[in-house]
Amino acid sequence: MTSVLKNDLLLRALLREPVPRRPIWLMRQAGRYLPEYRATRTRAGNFLALCTNPELACEVTLQPINRYPLDAAILFSDILTIPHAMNLGLEFEAGEGPKIARPVRTSADIDNLRVPDPTQELRYVIDAVALIRRELQGRVPLIGFAGSPWTVGTYMVEGGGSKTFGAIKRMMYEAPRELHRLMALLAKATILYLNAQIAAGAQAVMIFDTWGGILNPAQYREFSLHYMAEIVAGLTREAQGRRVPNIVFTKGGGAWLVEIAAIGCDAVGVDWTTDLATARKLVGSQVALQGNLDPSALFAPPETLRAEALRVLTSFGSGPGHVFNLGHGITPDVDPERVAVLVETVKNFAIAPGA
Amino acid sequence: MTSVLKNDLLLRALLREPVPRRPIWLMRQAGRYLPEYRATRTRAGNFLALCTNPELACEVTLQPINRYPLDAAILFSDILTIPHAMNLGLEFEAGEGPKIARPVRTSADIDNLRVPDPTQELRYVIDAVALIRRELQGRVPLIGFAGSPWTVGTYMVEGGGSKTFGAIKRMMYEAPRELHRLMALLAKATILYLNAQIAAGAQAVMIFDTWGGILNPAQYREFSLHYMAEIVAGLTREAQGRRVPNIVFTKGGGAWLVEIAAIGCDAVGVDWTTDLATARKLVGSQVALQGNLDPSALFAPPETLRAEALRVLTSFGSGPGHVFNLGHGITPDVDPERVAVLVETVKNFAIAPGA
Repeated sequence: MTSVLKNDLLLRALLREPVPRRPIWLMRQAGRYLPEYRATRTRAGNFLALCTNPELACEVTLQPINRYPLDAAILFSDILTIPHAMNLGLEFEAGEGPKIARPVRTSADIDNLRVPDPTQELRYVIDAVALIRRELQGRVPLIGFAGSPWTVGTYMVEGGGSKTFGAIKRMMYEAPRELHRLMALLAKATILYLNAQIAAGAQAVMIFDTWGGILNPAQYREFSLHYMAEIVAGLTREAQGRRVPNIVFTKGGGAWLVEIAAIGCDAVGVDWTTDLATARKLVGSQVALQGNLDPSALFAPPETLRAEALRVLTSFGSGPGHVFNLGHGITPDVDPERVAVLVETVKNFAIAPGA
Repeated sequence: MTSVLKNDLLLRALLREPVPRRPIWLMRQAGRYLPEYRATRTRAGNFLALCTNPELACEVTLQPINRYPLDAAILFSDILTIPHAMNLGLEFEAGEGPKIARPVRTSADIDNLRVPDPTQELRYVIDAVALIRRELQGRVPLIGFAGSPWTVGTYMVEGGGSKTFGAIKRMMYEAPRELHRLMALLAKATILYLNAQIAAGAQAVMIFDTWGGILNPAQYREFSLHYMAEIVAGLTREAQGRRVPNIVFTKGGGAWLVEIAAIGCDAVGVDWTTDLATARKLVGSQVALQGNLDPSALFAPPETLRAEALRVLTSFGSGPGHVFNLGHGITPDVDPERVAVLVETVKNFAIAPGA
């Protein structure tokens, strides 16, 4: 765990320190598009078995790092580990997405929830982090992560994925104080969880707010951003003598970048619907930006893919503070060869002298 | 068809003319949340049978007008009538959304498409428009509509709804010229279709771009907005001696309101993720705005619902050019009594003197 970090481009870029080139990692880089991932998952039996087995989670975390010269590893896990630890009956049905057998709908349901002790109920995650750090041997930094309280809450209240989010919105309008209780509890759980990941060796952390973008601006501030701000304020800022940068990402949050940047985070994730030049103009030098190639660009022929990647790189402009990534996770039907093209393109992109 | 229009608030507001109060209508106001709609649909047998029967389409179009004092009727139909007329095998499976049996994937598939003659293959829509106008007897104006080429194209290429839009994005990256051919053909078909609706009596028209928001800014301009601009330029501007206003609505298009407003449309629809005050600051006096209450606010208790509606009304500010609506369609699980509360609240909202 104390190996010297050989490639710290990610950590420096997230803190807006000068770097010789843009670091790159990809959301869901350890995933179904990789045949070696599918093999391990088959061995595990199912998705949840893979998440809860530290050795296998470590194995799949390292797969993309062994295949591509990426600048970061991200813990293989799921944003629903917290509701799983709360014993709500999480299952992943094949092709159906997550299901929660005992959704949280009433005041009594919220009363029954307990903040998990990450070193107990989430021990498998913490063990995976420590193991991955050991196995990485300082090649690249390890990113830990959690879902935002709002996003995790949508699954807990809806009982799974949703198109209209009727159940949680009903709670928001009918019983806003109850929903605040749930969000506060999730924020508390998430702080403990991310800090345990940091203590075990995560060198940066990211908060995924996949569903913040379905809220109106006032609701987004009140029910999502507020709790992400609480989390950011509660995070361990330094570990092993080094700053632990954090990244906040709201999918569909392009209109709120200024407000997100103001919560004290180090970096803001940007999806592909906002131009990075626009994003940077909005946030100024307050935060680094991470993103934002459309994941579907990985379907493009190599030449088009290169052009799209260069468009993202140049749209950020010069100067430090850009971590290249997709605007959302890689989809399972992507050809791994295209990912190689993308990584190579970004790594060969020279930062202009004096930038 | 030549009855004098007794309530022209909608038409005036869409053209930014002064009105004594804000007009209101609701996307999907004729829909499953109404028991009388469900009864008619059961009688029709299925959704497509309801759409293709002018008498039944007229009946359900009038249901919300008879129940609530709304300021407009909108043709009951579907954005997929054009692919249906192109003989692609449209079906609506219960609870599954639309399916297209013969998706458009190759250059040859596009070659085989023919622009439908709206007075032939889409005769049932045109007959419905004429019948509804007759039955409305000038109570409120009738809005006609179509899907945007991009949005209709997503269903045609994907073969139904999609979460990741992999097939059409693949075409966009691999064969952009083919996709442009498809979009151009759909734009042409849509102009003929909307103009036939106008000729039959539609007094305003709306273009629904439900999926433009999944594109990056450059792609949105190139594959969605460009073709909506073509349609707007090709629309009949006047009928029966009166201007026929048009409304362009891209769900998730908050970042592009300035560009949408510049295509020559009369009004821009705004979803609930953008504040109307922000939207108005962006578009200035170029266009009217339509929106933008979160449809889920209809789950709120009456008092909260009223407060949310007032928030939308006041966020627009004073002066003409606001048509109250939801930010997306009413969901089936809404209580019809809540809709009554909403309509009443908006109708009682007095525009400040001198506004």
